[in-house]
Amino acid sequence: MAITVVGSVAFDSIETPSGRKERCLGGAATYFSLAASFFTDVRVIAVVGEDFGPDEEAVFKARKIDTRGIEHTAGKSFFWEGSYLDNLNEAKTHITDLNVFATFEPKIPDAYRDSEFLFLANIDPVLQRRVREVLPLAKLVAGDTMNYWIKDHRPALLEVLKGLDVLLINDTEARMLTSNNNLVQAARGVLALGPRTLVVKHGEYGATAFFSNRSFSVTGGSPQSHPFRAPALPLEEVVDPTGAGDSFAGGFFGYLAAQRELTPAAFRRAMFYGSVMGSFAVERFGTERLQELTRHEIDARFIVFRELTHLD
Amino acid sequence: MAITVVGSVAFDSIETPSGRKERCLGGAATYFSLAASFFTDVRVIAVVGEDFGPDEEAVFKARKIDTRGIEHTAGKSFFWEGSYLDNLNEAKTHITDLNVFATFEPKIPDAYRDSEFLFLANIDPVLQRRVREVLPLAKLVAGDTMNYWIKDHRPALLEVLKGLDVLLINDTEARMLTSNNNLVQAARGVLALGPRTLVVKHGEYGATAFFSNRSFSVTGGSPQSHPFRAPALPLEEVVDPTGAGDSFAGGFFGYLAAQRELTPAAFRRAMFYGSVMGSFAVERFGTERLQELTRHEIDARFIVFRELTHLD
Repeated sequence: MAITVVGSVAFDSIETPSGRKERCLGGAATYFSLAASFFTDVRVIAVVGEDFGPDEEAVFKARKIDTRGIEHTAGKSFFWEGSYLDNLNEAKTHITDLNVFATFEPKIPDAYRDSEFLFLANIDPVLQRRVREVLPLAKLVAGDTMNYWIKDHRPALLEVLKGLDVLLINDTEARMLTSNNNLVQAARGVLALGPRTLVVKHGEYGATAFFSNRSFSVTGGSPQSHPFRAPALPLEEVVDPTGAGDSFAGGFFGYLAAQRELTPAAFRRAMFYGSVMGSFAVERFGTERLQELTRHEIDARFIVFRELTHLD
Repeated sequence: MAITVVGSVAFDSIETPSGRKERCLGGAATYFSLAASFFTDVRVIAVVGEDFGPDEEAVFKARKIDTRGIEHTAGKSFFWEGSYLDNLNEAKTHITDLNVFATFEPKIPDAYRDSEFLFLANIDPVLQRRVREVLPLAKLVAGDTMNYWIKDHRPALLEVLKGLDVLLINDTEARMLTSNNNLVQAARGVLALGPRTLVVKHGEYGATAFFSNRSFSVTGGSPQSHPFRAPALPLEEVVDPTGAGDSFAGGFFGYLAAQRELTPAAFRRAMFYGSVMGSFAVERFGTERLQELTRHEIDARFIVFRELTHLD
């Protein structure tokens, strides 16, 4: 079933120990869409400026992503410049130019209104909530956020969390959200804020899913009681970590949206596909690797992830 | 088959966010022995002072550990005082009193000489090598080390590494040993120094095994080509992380020593048992939890680890 995603479509200038690239096509919604497009139909809601031209549009079109919800407006697209020179696990931001994103008012095409899966990528929680409200048919809603919204926009964020089926955040964000350094206690604290299921991403060490007794109730599946951990792939070279988390979310949610039934087993496989997509994303700068990927490569790597973790 | 372990038997005063305990029975050889004793016979080589009395002896005896290789001498046992107040992943050392350990000359009882499994816990690599040389029948030799030996005793350490079937170290140590921050590249660098197999421990994120094409050749098993990752258990409360790595090593090596054949499948299960024993060790101060543990609890937790990671 189709996923609608709302989030940023942006240009990123990135420096890592592997080199430097100017104005890569990026943004959370871009990474998410490309990753999810290998599993199901994807519809994007975003805003771009005049610097987003046919070449950028073609990247989405090549993956059959519905771009009718990408609004084109006067001005420049969201621009981010950052580096990972000291630490591949944490970006150092040099420039954040919101540009056309500063006044973003999501407009949802009528053709999107039957979306049963909704992903609220990392944007202002006020906008996340608004999109959620105008897509009441969405039966499974997942979302992301970041330190900035946790710290300075907490009340609005808490409203969004209440309505989420799955929240995907990293270790630091889970700790910030609950002021608790223990992963299990922090996870319980986050689940108490509303999300039915929590996925905590650990960067090069994978991701852990924690379930409340309300997990999956929305879709009639039976809840899973114990946590589940997907590994990350030990990689020779992480060329560019940008977008790894959004690519995880795309693989995870894309796989879930393609299933007939949302069983605990489907959820566990979705976690693996999330890690698989994250592992590809970091192999090249920006979204380069996701653009040229094939489903065959994805399934081959899924088997590698299985061998990495399974006893038999 | 029996394992001989050489290493420290010590008293530790430990402060963590959960509290403070004075003079817990500790030391790498103690944690290792207790953990391994649930799987196979264990023989210890160490030195203790007059403060090591019948109560301490009884801890080993209760687990049927052979203590004939623990030399009693005048003076005080090795004493360590440390805390984990800011960071449960890294101890802050306040006091290290080597005491009787400063002049330790390992003496190997004749009854130990048929040991086919040898574990060289974290001590001076010169002593590790000496013990290895007087136990030539050991067909599988594993070992540990730490930043101090890597930094200031590199030539002696490199001699030990050449002869190891399995080296168990943590992320920081792997990076120090190779001056490389990428886990996969660091692992290849460590394997090039001699160990046939490398296990890198990631603390709360588990451990990853890397294999060379010489892995297991010593025992005729077929080598495993791809890495294998065992998770750690997400725990509500880490009461005291001291000895987690040594307990991992004890579970891992103890399980291996109990197998008829050292197949890749046995190795993977050994990694899980290592993580299981590490997860118990941190639940109480010092070796308290290992002392009261049962094999039934161990096997029940093994199943939890399987559920945490396996798709089906």
